[in-house]
Amino acid sequence: MKRNLIAAALVPFLIFVLPQSPPRNQSGNEQADNSEQSRDQAEEGIKHLLVAQVEAWNKGNLEGFMEGYWHSPDLTFFSGGDIAKGWQAALQRYQRRYQGTGKEMGHLEFQDLNIDLLGPRAAVVTGKWQLTMSGGKTPHGLFTLILKRLQNGWRIVHDHTSSADEK
Amino acid sequence: MKRNLIAAALVPFLIFVLPQSPPRNQSGNEQADNSEQSRDQAEEGIKHLLVAQVEAWNKGNLEGFMEGYWHSPDLTFFSGGDIAKGWQAALQRYQRRYQGTGKEMGHLEFQDLNIDLLGPRAAVVTGKWQLTMSGGKTPHGLFTLILKRLQNGWRIVHDHTSSADEK
Repeated sequence: MKRNLIAAALVPFLIFVLPQSPPRNQSGNEQADNSEQSRDQAEEGIKHLLVAQVEAWNKGNLEGFMEGYWHSPDLTFFSGGDIAKGWQAALQRYQRRYQGTGKEMGHLEFQDLNIDLLGPRAAVVTGKWQLTMSGGKTPHGLFTLILKRLQNGWRIVHDHTSSADEK
Repeated sequence: MKRNLIAAALVPFLIFVLPQSPPRNQSGNEQADNSEQSRDQAEEGIKHLLVAQVEAWNKGNLEGFMEGYWHSPDLTFFSGGDIAKGWQAALQRYQRRYQGTGKEMGHLEFQDLNIDLLGPRAAVVTGKWQLTMSGGKTPHGLFTLILKRLQNGWRIVHDHTSSADEK
């Protein structure tokens, strides 16, 4: 997926959504606090993944970007009517689109990110992506990511990306 | 979203994914059985929603189709780079695309449905949609649905649909 999030663009979002030290309800029970901490930790983990992906993309490091995805033949990547099934197929799709002859990766940014924790080990992230190419073009669109907390941390297990150019 | 599932097309899927009477492990504990029952019930509820939507669509009943969606201003519907925010906006998008002058709803089918329960009250459903229009055209594409189990049952809270025509 084309990802359009720069660390700078994330800052206001992170301050709003992911307070480092959320206020604790002194009269609340410990379980509620633990639950709140777990949510904070989950959102931190997901935010970390997204930031790392954007940083990798903007260094031209596609393999680094791909580390955010579940390294499995069961990863699914939907885009413009096409399905890439498996991590390797998703990587090859990116290589074709952004690293072929005359292609470029551009500069990636995200906007309007929304993280919704669906359980202790699953989340959906939605947002807008935009690339800025060297010639000034700015392809952009929307994404929906399903993430799961696996043994090695949060990973994207399903990605559905659409482009505003695709209408 | 354009939905392309007819009851007949669902039958093999349901037999495979949603056995009515799953075999019980006699030596398993009751909790595991309950968990398995809960999963079956969840998948049944989601399947019921999808079948009801397709049946409504294929009767030209757009409001009936829309009953599958969360009736909330926080529903999000992504398609071809556009966001419809809220149930009313999603309905209006469908009305514009499929009930305007010279428009038709066509006949809807789903294929390759996959239901992934992400927790006791959340799931992601992916699949392919296809419409068959009276002139023989068959617009088609992919969808990703996030569903939550609300007080009145399972509802779609986020829909990301893309079209193969959009490339």
